[in-house]
Amino acid sequence: MSYHQQLTIGLFGFGVVGEGLYKVLEKTPSLKATIKKVCIKNPEKKRNAPAELFTTDKNEILFDEEINVIVEVINESEAAFEIVSTAFKNGKAVVSASKKMIAEHLPEILQLQKETGLPFLCEAAACASIPVIRNLEEYYDNDLLHAIKGIINGSTNYILTKMFEDKLDFKQALLQAQQLGFAEADPTLDIDGWDALNKWCILLNHAYGIVASPQQIVFNGIQSIQLSDALVAKEKNYQIKLVAQAQKLQNGKVAAFVLPQFVKQEDHLAFVKNEYNGVVIESGFADKQFFYGKGAGSFPTASAVLSDISALRYDYKYEYKKLYHHVPGELTEDFYLKVYLSFDDWKYIPREKLEWIEEWHAEDDRKYLVGVLPFKELKNSTWWKENNTSLIVSPEPIIEDVEIRKLKKKSLELAGVI
Amino acid sequence: MSYHQQLTIGLFGFGVVGEGLYKVLEKTPSLKATIKKVCIKNPEKKRNAPAELFTTDKNEILFDEEINVIVEVINESEAAFEIVSTAFKNGKAVVSASKKMIAEHLPEILQLQKETGLPFLCEAAACASIPVIRNLEEYYDNDLLHAIKGIINGSTNYILTKMFEDKLDFKQALLQAQQLGFAEADPTLDIDGWDALNKWCILLNHAYGIVASPQQIVFNGIQSIQLSDALVAKEKNYQIKLVAQAQKLQNGKVAAFVLPQFVKQEDHLAFVKNEYNGVVIESGFADKQFFYGKGAGSFPTASAVLSDISALRYDYKYEYKKLYHHVPGELTEDFYLKVYLSFDDWKYIPREKLEWIEEWHAEDDRKYLVGVLPFKELKNSTWWKENNTSLIVSPEPIIEDVEIRKLKKKSLELAGVI
Repeated sequence: MSYHQQLTIGLFGFGVVGEGLYKVLEKTPSLKATIKKVCIKNPEKKRNAPAELFTTDKNEILFDEEINVIVEVINESEAAFEIVSTAFKNGKAVVSASKKMIAEHLPEILQLQKETGLPFLCEAAACASIPVIRNLEEYYDNDLLHAIKGIINGSTNYILTKMFEDKLDFKQALLQAQQLGFAEADPTLDIDGWDALNKWCILLNHAYGIVASPQQIVFNGIQSIQLSDALVAKEKNYQIKLVAQAQKLQNGKVAAFVLPQFVKQEDHLAFVKNEYNGVVIESGFADKQFFYGKGAGSFPTASAVLSDISALRYDYKYEYKKLYHHVPGELTEDFYLKVYLSFDDWKYIPREKLEWIEEWHAEDDRKYLVGVLPFKELKNSTWWKENNTSLIVSPEPIIEDVEIRKLKKKSLELAGVI
Repeated sequence: MSYHQQLTIGLFGFGVVGEGLYKVLEKTPSLKATIKKVCIKNPEKKRNAPAELFTTDKNEILFDEEINVIVEVINESEAAFEIVSTAFKNGKAVVSASKKMIAEHLPEILQLQKETGLPFLCEAAACASIPVIRNLEEYYDNDLLHAIKGIINGSTNYILTKMFEDKLDFKQALLQAQQLGFAEADPTLDIDGWDALNKWCILLNHAYGIVASPQQIVFNGIQSIQLSDALVAKEKNYQIKLVAQAQKLQNGKVAAFVLPQFVKQEDHLAFVKNEYNGVVIESGFADKQFFYGKGAGSFPTASAVLSDISALRYDYKYEYKKLYHHVPGELTEDFYLKVYLSFDDWKYIPREKLEWIEEWHAEDDRKYLVGVLPFKELKNSTWWKENNTSLIVSPEPIIEDVEIRKLKKKSLELAGVI
């Protein structure tokens, strides 16, 4: 593809994002980008565009030599990957919004980019309207990234906000989110944390050069959070958020997870309410930065896709500098997490796994404790996700391996145990 | 300059930013960018770099054919402009951090870019570590920008925060800012609003394609804000911030100014404390976005310069799409502002200029009122900056021309005047 040339686009998907994109491109001749053909699944459905624009045959687009850009905004992960890999093999640049597909096929997508030298842009796949991937690639490419954390799923954040502010219980809040279109009819992908997990895999790649599959990352959603947890949080002057977090440890490796978290009122993430997303980046030079905006929805997503298309005009591509030009980041399990656990019965809690317990409330129906767990325990077991047990990590939850002995001794002294 | 080639840099200025940059580039061979020569003013000063790196002769750099990038981080505006224009004429790409120079020479700098086709990147000149220019250029290039507002001067924000949180008076707060290095020994440029004004000229250009000189923009600093104003703000549950604001009006033109402003607690800008900067962008697609980070200081500034250098490797340049590919934005004076005025004596306030007054407190030594002024009055007079009078605009201060009659009638009815 040559620089500043006309972009001829083959589009896959004509839902709210695809249609929005089509309309904007029509109105913006300055972009020098036109959609030549749109591939759809259901030819019977009425569309707000000329009939000759559509096809149900993907090869009509993928093998059209005039088309130099494939934009892919469909929902099926495996179909999306097939489109993307065929597009690459046929010499086409790709813009994708399919977070699940990208997270699950990261190694192959990286390989295809390497082999073909073609751009693959996916800003819409993580936090939509927040340009976090581009900023990680370009703006923090040479800066030492200490930590990154974010609220990267709008549905769960909406539900948590409503549980807090309007004291709705989980089911009522979810219903409201669905009525407003912030959660899908089948909300499992959002609620159970899968969506945040997929996005986190993508962002870990751009932030640290980590190539991790979703299976490697410890995560949970908000499905087990109870109204009683919200009350405890209120007492402690915390909010509960579903936080994706990563931090470079002293051993040079990276701690990363996606878990519900107690967030202090003065934390940047406490500012992120309702369906919004927010990302906090801590780096050596730029210090602490905070990006905030709409992380989903047709227009925010279309705006991210548009910005990627626009970038293709000057042949922009991710360089994955953290992966290829530096020593790529490596995940570690050798650290500890300070956690809050609430549960129905002590029998569900393997107390011997806790390094120490700092606080416990056992008198009520719903019991809880605050203690320290080896991260490996979360990685290798599932009790903390089961039997109605709710695990919420503390603010600044990460305790490094090198600090654990000292802190444990101090804690036991305070408790009068030693 | 060709793509992904070695960048050979000539650097002007070796203060904290220049030296920081030198060190980082030395440590980052992957950047393929080396500083060949540094031009300094004072050859006697001890430098932490080999002596042969330095010269006091600018032409040794500007006419060196091997050097393809000029990085300019000096303080003198006119000298900086001469360096930049000579660099352009000699076919070199330019990275600049000189906000005053850019604001004052915007038309010439645009012309030089047009004539030579060379990149001129200046992310460090506005909000330092916050990548606001790049995001306005790339991310919002095709999106309808309704409004943009920001806290873009760290020194004044630090002082205002201290006046609020520690109840310091202006002079004490300034002294503390100076001791911590957040304000210059001569703080006039910051305090009186010049620095924010210069940055706002640059941002208006990238946001709306407006080419305005600093003389055209209504502005003030925080020099007249009194502790009593802070107390009134507290009563009303507002904060006071120095806010740069721009908004597209119904007539298609743009209202823009830099003035102290009452900010509601739930406003994104209320979150921006101490020396931090923050920018809120409201657009058609991406909705509301908020960028937050350090707006000054050696490392945040060096990080922005570095990110520009990195972008030159793929021949990135600003396209100024709002200016060249759309109908460029145009400033207007045809609107009204709701303002708070505090003053020592009624005689300093031309009451007849106020469209209406909603509130007044005349009993104390320090009197104040809340009323509506035509923006033209601020543009064409100076009484509101004089005689110890303090003008602070209200939250959402802009009243459009088309709404003024209706609102005036309503307000007079409420007051029982008609």
